[in-house]
Amino acid sequence: MWRDLLPLGRDHDTRGYRRYAWTAADADCRAWFRAQAASRGLTYELDRNGNQWAWLGDPEAGDAVVTGSHLDSVPDGGAFDGPLGVVSSFAALDELRRRGVEFTKPVAITNFGDEEGARFGLACVGSRLTSGVLTREQAYALQDGDGVSLPQAMERAGYDPETIGADPARLARIGAFIELHVEQGRALDLSGDAVGVASSIWPHGRWRFDFRGEANHAGTTRLADRRDPMLSYAETVLAARREAELAGTVATFGKISVEPNGVNAIPSLVRGWLDSRAADQRSLDDTVTGIEKAARAYADAHGIDVSLTRESFTPVVEFDHALRDEIARILGTKTTLTAPVLGTGAGHDAGILARSIPTAMLFVRNPTGVSHSPAEFAAEDDCLAGVCALADVLEGLACK
Amino acid sequence: MWRDLLPLGRDHDTRGYRRYAWTAADADCRAWFRAQAASRGLTYELDRNGNQWAWLGDPEAGDAVVTGSHLDSVPDGGAFDGPLGVVSSFAALDELRRRGVEFTKPVAITNFGDEEGARFGLACVGSRLTSGVLTREQAYALQDGDGVSLPQAMERAGYDPETIGADPARLARIGAFIELHVEQGRALDLSGDAVGVASSIWPHGRWRFDFRGEANHAGTTRLADRRDPMLSYAETVLAARREAELAGTVATFGKISVEPNGVNAIPSLVRGWLDSRAADQRSLDDTVTGIEKAARAYADAHGIDVSLTRESFTPVVEFDHALRDEIARILGTKTTLTAPVLGTGAGHDAGILARSIPTAMLFVRNPTGVSHSPAEFAAEDDCLAGVCALADVLEGLACK
Repeated sequence: MWRDLLPLGRDHDTRGYRRYAWTAADADCRAWFRAQAASRGLTYELDRNGNQWAWLGDPEAGDAVVTGSHLDSVPDGGAFDGPLGVVSSFAALDELRRRGVEFTKPVAITNFGDEEGARFGLACVGSRLTSGVLTREQAYALQDGDGVSLPQAMERAGYDPETIGADPARLARIGAFIELHVEQGRALDLSGDAVGVASSIWPHGRWRFDFRGEANHAGTTRLADRRDPMLSYAETVLAARREAELAGTVATFGKISVEPNGVNAIPSLVRGWLDSRAADQRSLDDTVTGIEKAARAYADAHGIDVSLTRESFTPVVEFDHALRDEIARILGTKTTLTAPVLGTGAGHDAGILARSIPTAMLFVRNPTGVSHSPAEFAAEDDCLAGVCALADVLEGLACK
Repeated sequence: MWRDLLPLGRDHDTRGYRRYAWTAADADCRAWFRAQAASRGLTYELDRNGNQWAWLGDPEAGDAVVTGSHLDSVPDGGAFDGPLGVVSSFAALDELRRRGVEFTKPVAITNFGDEEGARFGLACVGSRLTSGVLTREQAYALQDGDGVSLPQAMERAGYDPETIGADPARLARIGAFIELHVEQGRALDLSGDAVGVASSIWPHGRWRFDFRGEANHAGTTRLADRRDPMLSYAETVLAARREAELAGTVATFGKISVEPNGVNAIPSLVRGWLDSRAADQRSLDDTVTGIEKAARAYADAHGIDVSLTRESFTPVVEFDHALRDEIARILGTKTTLTAPVLGTGAGHDAGILARSIPTAMLFVRNPTGVSHSPAEFAAEDDCLAGVCALADVLEGLACK
């Protein structure tokens, strides 16, 4: 199962994955999901927002136990972020069938579409649409770097974008959602545990800084006559690091777009995207306010116009405490596993769904903490421990 | 004539020009040149390197007086850089015919291909090939951002790339080359003159800095665990400004490429291109050495690997002194114009050809000094003064 998925959407040169929403690589991953569902005799379903479902039992019965993750990737991402959760879900179902358990509730495995937001700049589009956090109108306004809109991309991939939007009836039939995910930090590595349970997702957001100066010739324009926005951008990148250190948060400039981006032209426009996250709202506010203040001061000094746009924001997400305690109880009685409870700076579909339904997450140890990179890794033994823990949880929740 | 040329290759949104070598916009400009030659009864010729020629008199007679410039542009460039020289050449010929002068030497107007290097990253490809500064093999290795090679691009545009290479026989038939160009600085504006004569072109070069770190998740990777090459890039951009101020030179980072360039990914690679120029070689060396030293120090401190590649370099170009004195004499006797002699930080086809044949440049005042931007400008009176000066020079050189 894992072997079939590995080559899909992998770039030959970087060895990283480029599985962007509604591309050919995405279609390959979706075909893989459908084949996995079919080979297990599960009922396949595509919901109105392009998320895939594989059902065991009656989808209409209600109080369903759902598990899954996503199959898309960031640019040149690793093999585990997303796929580990989907693969582990199928493997956990196989394990439960091996155990011969009797399900008293419907169970489903899901692949949520466009979790990483690599193409349209907004993460968790599939779960946001389903839970109504993203409206149909907002989704229709999304465009990729080539000016292709989300509905156009869906149509070209053979999906009908007409029906996208909130799907409360579907959510009402779910009793619990569990997402297993490779850890994107080193907390489990440092504590020496194979599997952990999520407590909360840090508040996080994305801000776009537009620095506008004046395009000019790089060889003939005196330094004194320049209005070079690249200088303000550089000062702001360094300010972001200082502010994050000061507040104990994280702040990153990982994406940039420059006009005209010519070797011998002083830029007219430098766009830089800031990603910042913190354990609490106040530290996040302090960080972003500090960066903005520094950016404006530098820009004013260089005759640069700077504007700031918050492109997305997600407040802190506390996972359902009752479900978390139940999972801890199940893992405590079924296994000798100690599964520490930990927060995370990464966004997930589970974080979006947590506002509508009881939701939990399991993390699998990542020895280096590296993620969103081809170097992302989890050891086979830890992956198997994750499958076993997920199977235990599903058995505890769906086979009472 | 000017009106027909203005709309070609202009971007609707930026109002800047995108006339890149061997594109549709370039083909439009070339068709315009050919039509101008035809309407004046000039003999049209395309040389083996894709440069256009319009001849009055016998091209084979030798000791020809040639004038012209280029029609391609930087990304979102202005209307004057290049085209002003070509348009002024045709207008000067019209003026000389109006004067009823008798030509004793062949005269030609040229459009040199790919002067700006916007597509393949190397400036003055047409004149470099003709003068043998760029070999056929080196030209064949050039690629644009989409991986299209120069010979492929030429073929797709309907030209035969087989014959490109040095053309000494053609150069041997030229007695003098004069390029008229809009000034790319404010020297004439500050001195209060409409037209100037070039003394030299500053030494200049392009260097690519590759900063390699480790791609990782922007939300979950602790600051202490990061190897973020964007920080080293930002430090280097600021160091370049400091070093240029110190040495009295110019240094610019106007082009960048980031991998994976995702909002929520710490980059694995940041590539920045440095353009630096100086009045003398030693100041240029000091500037680039200082920037490199700073880049390596910052990169070492952040666990970043930095490598530096010199992509192009042109030593100082002194224009032919005898020709310059002759032009000063002509302008002094024919007009009341004082044409100051000035250096320039910009590269030109004239600078390439100066190594092979007697070459000179005329500059037309640019009131803001802005160039390589849609805001680039020259007043109509100054443009007419430029045409008049060029006509005087051609008359003095070709109608003895």
